[in-house]
Amino acid sequence: MQDNNFKVNQHTLKTAISRVEKDKIITRGYNQKDLIEKIRYSDMVYLMLKGRLPSIKEGKIFNHVLVSFCDHGVTPPSTQTARLVASSGSPINSAVAGALLSFGHKHAGAIEQTMKLYQSSIDSLYLTDDSQIDNKQIASLAIDIHNEYLLEGKKVPGFGHRYHDVDPRADKLMNLVIKEGFVGPHIKLALAVEDLVYQKKGIRLNVDGANAAILSDLGFDPELGFGIFMIGRIPGIIAHIHEEKMDEDEFRKFCDLDDVEYQGRY
Amino acid sequence: MQDNNFKVNQHTLKTAISRVEKDKIITRGYNQKDLIEKIRYSDMVYLMLKGRLPSIKEGKIFNHVLVSFCDHGVTPPSTQTARLVASSGSPINSAVAGALLSFGHKHAGAIEQTMKLYQSSIDSLYLTDDSQIDNKQIASLAIDIHNEYLLEGKKVPGFGHRYHDVDPRADKLMNLVIKEGFVGPHIKLALAVEDLVYQKKGIRLNVDGANAAILSDLGFDPELGFGIFMIGRIPGIIAHIHEEKMDEDEFRKFCDLDDVEYQGRY
Amino acid sequence: MQDNNFKVNQHTLKTAISRVEKDKIITRGYNQKDLIEKIRYSDMVYLMLKGRLPSIKEGKIFNHVLVSFCDHGVTPPSTQTARLVASSGSPINSAVAGALLSFGHKHAGAIEQTMKLYQSSIDSLYLTDDSQIDNKQIASLAIDIHNEYLLEGKKVPGFGHRYHDVDPRADKLMNLVIKEGFVGPHIKLALAVEDLVYQKKGIRLNVDGANAAILSDLGFDPELGFGIFMIGRIPGIIAHIHEEKMDEDEFRKFCDLDDVEYQGRY
Amino acid sequence: MQDNNFKVNQHTLKTAISRVEKDKIITRGYNQKDLIEKIRYSDMVYLMLKGRLPSIKEGKIFNHVLVSFCDHGVTPPSTQTARLVASSGSPINSAVAGALLSFGHKHAGAIEQTMKLYQSSIDSLYLTDDSQIDNKQIASLAIDIHNEYLLEGKKVPGFGHRYHDVDPRADKLMNLVIKEGFVGPHIKLALAVEDLVYQKKGIRLNVDGANAAILSDLGFDPELGFGIFMIGRIPGIIAHIHEEKMDEDEFRKFCDLDDVEYQGRY
Repeated sequence: MQDNNFKVNQHTLKTAISRVEKDKIITRGYNQKDLIEKIRYSDMVYLMLKGRLPSIKEGKIFNHVLVSFCDHGVTPPSTQTARLVASSGSPINSAVAGALLSFGHKHAGAIEQTMKLYQSSIDSLYLTDDSQIDNKQIASLAIDIHNEYLLEGKKVPGFGHRYHDVDPRADKLMNLVIKEGFVGPHIKLALAVEDLVYQKKGIRLNVDGANAAILSDLGFDPELGFGIFMIGRIPGIIAHIHEEKMDEDEFRKFCDLDDVEYQGRY
Repeated sequence: MQDNNFKVNQHTLKTAISRVEKDKIITRGYNQKDLIEKIRYSDMVYLMLKGRLPSIKEGKIFNHVLVSFCDHGVTPPSTQTARLVASSGSPINSAVAGALLSFGHKHAGAIEQTMKLYQSSIDSLYLTDDSQIDNKQIASLAIDIHNEYLLEGKKVPGFGHRYHDVDPRADKLMNLVIKEGFVGPHIKLALAVEDLVYQKKGIRLNVDGANAAILSDLGFDPELGFGIFMIGRIPGIIAHIHEEKMDEDEFRKFCDLDDVEYQGRY
Repeated sequence: MQDNNFKVNQHTLKTAISRVEKDKIITRGYNQKDLIEKIRYSDMVYLMLKGRLPSIKEGKIFNHVLVSFCDHGVTPPSTQTARLVASSGSPINSAVAGALLSFGHKHAGAIEQTMKLYQSSIDSLYLTDDSQIDNKQIASLAIDIHNEYLLEGKKVPGFGHRYHDVDPRADKLMNLVIKEGFVGPHIKLALAVEDLVYQKKGIRLNVDGANAAILSDLGFDPELGFGIFMIGRIPGIIAHIHEEKMDEDEFRKFCDLDDVEYQGRY
Repeated sequence: MQDNNFKVNQHTLKTAISRVEKDKIITRGYNQKDLIEKIRYSDMVYLMLKGRLPSIKEGKIFNHVLVSFCDHGVTPPSTQTARLVASSGSPINSAVAGALLSFGHKHAGAIEQTMKLYQSSIDSLYLTDDSQIDNKQIASLAIDIHNEYLLEGKKVPGFGHRYHDVDPRADKLMNLVIKEGFVGPHIKLALAVEDLVYQKKGIRLNVDGANAAILSDLGFDPELGFGIFMIGRIPGIIAHIHEEKMDEDEFRKFCDLDDVEYQGRY
């Protein structure tokens, strides 16, 4: 301690996540021993993030969401970064960290941005319990959103995919929420916007757009939407890193000398 | 391209994880549409990492493992790093990446190191189908391992915990594998070593030691053991980051001026 | 390659930084052999970032800027993260990466934000070659900026420091640019704003505010201002990591069980 | 605080780097105000890492070393990772962090490994002040090292370069240390090993091998060698990130669908 101005360090941290006692861990109000024995891992993820266990239906839908993020081959920048870092001989945690850093606003930001759009739009309504009235409000809101983006010449977030006309994940997710009777206002809004965008541009919801609507109806905050995307994608990234470390013995590269055009001074 | 030495760039990458076609994604041999509808997220993680779906029993055990890694409050360095990075206003993916970088060999390396020990030990045996003979071999192996570490005065990896005498997670996991009839040679070895270490030092298996044995009996490579730990822990880390961003509005710090003793020159 | 739709991969990357030939490397138009022999490292940094060597005066000023970022003890979140990651046994590059991730908008964003403010403000003027006219314009601009922040009740970026009334680095830097005759419009603006803020609030320019003005007068883009801060700070961070790895043998922590207040359910 | 077992938090951190007082910062025994005015940035880096200022000759040599690490175009995995992360829209600090994570043992580990080899070898000698005797000892040591690697069929660390027969940086550095009279035992050893490797295999010292010898003669610890490499390279990496963000508006990729061969099940 310097001089005489001794102060007791005040680092008290308030948390509602876990309480660690000797030989006992309480997490979100449950003894971890019981959680380990009794609950599904997807429900555990829900519990960690929301602070309560899901209902059976919520748990089922949330499980679909997590699975749907699993992998899109080596096409995403994040997966390519993971393999590039792994190929340099760095440890697996560094390669996963590298992948996460590639989730920039152009890549993984879409889900958070789309959740913000859906949630701020729905929050602006005064929803009743009469689904006919609400559906009309939502249909009118969809037209507003569509027109706004159309006028500004901007892409509606959550729509279109570089490799797919119909993103098979979004298609399946939307079928499942309808079949399983889990269609809240955010999903209704996403479907209403899709009708308009598809009529006008032939473009459909992608996996981020579909999950943004579902996670909003599940009551998740947009930032956690991004977190849930990471949780769902990391097992795939780890599979790629492991494959890279097992199969390849040289530096991965995206370009070599012959691909480079020097435009500076000589 | 420079000069005339044009070469076609050979980046062909071989992968057995996913095949992306227009409007269709095949992952580990399954159509993702079917996976999204039908499988549990914990089985999806297993499928990504092992390349095949688990049996019912494997799936159940693997689910216990994933849940058991969920959270240990704010005590681990990785969780503290996550909160420290988040408190500076960095985005959530950066805070998760920071946490992963804190999984150094002193912190999260234990599970990989323990899996290597168990697997290299068991691989040195010639296991028969006669459990009596095998159990004797394993008991003798446990004595060798115990003596080796005792002689070198080193800590046996996978044992002891700073906060617990009986790590409740290890205790529950070992009860479950016995109850559910999933006790392979690596688990037998861990239990045999525990008997010796407990007699001599009063120290028990921790969560890393228990999971190292279970994941080895499930056939996972040690590096993937570290990967599975990360998968299991990241939802907890994201919960901490979100709590930090919601609740706290100042820099988190582990020391301030008064905690610092300057020992350099003046 | 899949199917028959073979395409030559087009990764051509245009760069003006370096051209690598067999046994020869040209960087920003210079042979690296000559650079290694002849130039100061601070001028090399300038050359890398601006694409040309500095004048003697620019080089001198830029050297002051780089030195001024060197270290602020263990108080910044980034330095604390570096030591926290290092204490877990992670490699030195991971610890530096962790520090960089703690440069969130609350911590290191200040310099970029301040450069944007100064540059957009000065860009809005029509500067003449008559310093009397220009000084009047700048004085009037300073009043506008000051009033705007005052009205909104917001902190003017680049001012005030948690530990200092007079940030010794800002003070010295401003004295040096005056003494060495390097006072362009952005520095004039910063000094004019300081007069107003100091009169009203007793608060002075900090190291970020001073350097934001100087780097703007040197013609650097705001994003590069953040880059230059990182370049200047990293040697200090590496010194801290090395000290941590040499001197300390346990986990660094910012809180332990007794500092935690669990507010969740039981 | 939990229960009654209140403990004062003991975070006292001992450091010899900086002492922060109100309005005054002492770093390595110097007032930062004086450092900002008077010393070259390369000497500041030396001071941070070694705890003392260099002699004139040491400062000159250390400046050569820092400049020599500046850039090798887009060929290194770390630079490619930086551009890949930047192209996803992540902030500049994340892109630099990504680059650092690509400094795996295959890429940037060479300098640390080579420093360890040189330092442990020289430490095994009993050096006198008689240069004739010492040179003989070192020549004999070089033969031992060369034979050992030759027998094991392994590459001597610090030798050979994928793009260069004569690495121009190593060549220039070795000429400079001879010309400037800075040839200590580690440099002598590196040159003696080079004679043998070149005779046998036609391979020469690379930039890592040359700098490993020079930094060892300057008295740096191997881990700091890796740190100095990072310090020297980061300005180049930041130049690449900035170029990427300015010039390119799409995702950088190292492979697209047509480059991928799926070898899994259908």
